[in-house]
Amino acid sequence: MAVTRLTQPECEALLAELPAWRLREDGLAIERTLRFADFNTAFGFMTRVAIEAEKSDHHPEWFNVYNRVEITLTTHDADGLSARDGKLARFIETAAAAASAG
Amino acid sequence: MAVTRLTQPECEALLAELPAWRLREDGLAIERTLRFADFNTAFGFMTRVAIEAEKSDHHPEWFNVYNRVEITLTTHDADGLSARDGKLARFIETAAAAASAG
Repeated sequence: MAVTRLTQPECEALLAELPAWRLREDGLAIERTLRFADFNTAFGFMTRVAIEAEKSDHHPEWFNVYNRVEITLTTHDADGLSARDGKLARFIETAAAAASAG
Repeated sequence: MAVTRLTQPECEALLAELPAWRLREDGLAIERTLRFADFNTAFGFMTRVAIEAEKSDHHPEWFNVYNRVEITLTTHDADGLSARDGKLARFIETAAAAASAG
């Protein structure tokens, strides 16, 4: 299924809406680092995101060490950012807030 | 709590026992990349490892994208490899085999 790549104004609107996220240097992905109280909280958060990712068939690239989670979102089928990344990023913000991440 | 760093012969024995793992360039960690059938299987495997890590208070550094999981094990309190890394690596091998990872 073809996925529409966000236009430049749409990317800018997305980043304005999600101030904790930054555009990757190549402009094809957004990134966010989160810190939690401990590993248990971090992995609990990851589990919520994993279930949402699986439900919507859009998965993150992510790295975890102890309480830190680094997430990259991009849409390979769009060769860049799509609305799917915005949707998953919004879910991540909600899940992070629920886990008191900073 | 002080953790004893493995000696050179102990490191060599560990790597001989775990042929799928490689020593990181700096010699302070072991690494392994695993591929699963899909994201669901990969994250199911990660969940088993996370529970084991939390139980033994020894956590991996890991990266996941879709069906791929890259794991690094090291013991910060030992400034290198310790018996804890061997224990977690053995658990990972068992969990990976159960999930038919290659």
